[in-house]
Amino acid sequence: MMRKPRTIKTVSAMRTLSRKARAEGKRIALVPTMGYLHQGHITLAQKARKMADLVVVSIFVNPIQFGPGEDLDRYPRDLKGDLQKLAAAGTDYVFTPSAGEIYPLGYQTHVEVENLSKGLCGAFRPGHFRGVATVVAKLFNIVQPDLALFGEKDFQQLRVVERMVKDLNFPVRIVAVPTVREPDGLAMSSRNSYLSASERKYAASLSHALFLAQNLVKKGETDPKVLTECAQKSIAHNPGTHIEYIEVRDDKTLEPVARIDRPCRMLLAVWEGKTRLIDNVRLNPKTS
Amino acid sequence: MMRKPRTIKTVSAMRTLSRKARAEGKRIALVPTMGYLHQGHITLAQKARKMADLVVVSIFVNPIQFGPGEDLDRYPRDLKGDLQKLAAAGTDYVFTPSAGEIYPLGYQTHVEVENLSKGLCGAFRPGHFRGVATVVAKLFNIVQPDLALFGEKDFQQLRVVERMVKDLNFPVRIVAVPTVREPDGLAMSSRNSYLSASERKYAASLSHALFLAQNLVKKGETDPKVLTECAQKSIAHNPGTHIEYIEVRDDKTLEPVARIDRPCRMLLAVWEGKTRLIDNVRLNPKTS
Repeated sequence: MMRKPRTIKTVSAMRTLSRKARAEGKRIALVPTMGYLHQGHITLAQKARKMADLVVVSIFVNPIQFGPGEDLDRYPRDLKGDLQKLAAAGTDYVFTPSAGEIYPLGYQTHVEVENLSKGLCGAFRPGHFRGVATVVAKLFNIVQPDLALFGEKDFQQLRVVERMVKDLNFPVRIVAVPTVREPDGLAMSSRNSYLSASERKYAASLSHALFLAQNLVKKGETDPKVLTECAQKSIAHNPGTHIEYIEVRDDKTLEPVARIDRPCRMLLAVWEGKTRLIDNVRLNPKTS
Repeated sequence: MMRKPRTIKTVSAMRTLSRKARAEGKRIALVPTMGYLHQGHITLAQKARKMADLVVVSIFVNPIQFGPGEDLDRYPRDLKGDLQKLAAAGTDYVFTPSAGEIYPLGYQTHVEVENLSKGLCGAFRPGHFRGVATVVAKLFNIVQPDLALFGEKDFQQLRVVERMVKDLNFPVRIVAVPTVREPDGLAMSSRNSYLSASERKYAASLSHALFLAQNLVKKGETDPKVLTECAQKSIAHNPGTHIEYIEVRDDKTLEPVARIDRPCRMLLAVWEGKTRLIDNVRLNPKTS
């Protein structure tokens, strides 16, 4: 068992530590999370460990990326368990500020990545990506990392953050890490803990639908409509299942595509009962 | 005559230089300007010289802070003259990127400081402070200064930038520098060059109106309405004079005040013909 990471709760303590590390020429990696860590997060922390001298994992359930009626209040938390897992992953510091530390009285500034925040999840969660971009900008300024790691499971978030870094010239390299899945294909997510046993069983079909589309593209299918229809049909229909969206987009810009003639991405959001799940896969056009 | 500052045109060259200076433990000061420099700017550059090891003055006429129909196209420029003045002020580097370098194709991110951007100039120039906050965030990330200097003449801009720095945790200290005035009181501005001889003469009355209000407060006047009425009356009415606003606000939050019972600020925007002028003074409540 490795040494437990040191917990840091204030912006000023984090900043002091970060400034010192930078002055010593240390390379800092940041893994931003909302806690209740699973193997997807741990893979990010492990990769960070290999790429940097100092690994900081932030655990902050960011209120401004939740809409009214969303699951902010019941979002799962387990700081003790998180610290044990991060100890094993060799993490140096865990930054766990309070909401008041991050958004003090009088707070009024937001960062918005306009086009990329609009469709897909953005259409159903207004303000969500504005909240994400804002807190990530803040974390970058507080932690001053050389690199920051994000999972591909939240693919629209990844593209929003990459674009923000490029547009606002943050001196941070974004490292994208492939989605980690359960043995039956379900993308790992802290929200999987909400699922009942039967919902959990049905939830595996989300990834199966995406893999099906991926295979059809491998075999030469190029029509996004055919792909989304096939994917839709292959999702298991529990009475509580509700498909919010299944779409094929350009892999880079996330704009709609008429044909799979460049790298694309199929993305979906599906409700199983009261739990909203998202997933995505890359669609590589068949090279003929 | 001191050595001419070195001109830097690309983000990557600026970033390389800045990273090197920081690695050497040098303290960097940034003075963001739109060029056509006057004694107000030079005072900022001189103060920067005293406070830092490396002084960077940016010259960039930021298109996104101009509204449709504003003076972006005719904004005065004189890079050669600017470089001479900055040489005399001991500036090390002038960062003069093109618009395409700062806002490349696909650009889509903005920073907005919400409440502070709304009233005063914000009410008449929608999007202006969003453009200011965005470009300043970019300049901070590119230049990575330890401190940045802003003139009090653009007082709402100063408060917007201070708030952005606080809210987004930029590791930059903002230094506010008092307005530099012409002998007759007119606040120095690149836009003063637009004024005709007669407009220029009338323009002096803007600062006189503000000084009058300041004196009334010193003598015990505490009613913002009385103060703005007196100021209004004392502005010389050229046929081309149009008062856009004269207001008394809290000095810190820029919110309206019912009485001068704390540090306040009187701010105004007045058109002289086709030229929009702004100015402001502090109103200190009489200590009894």
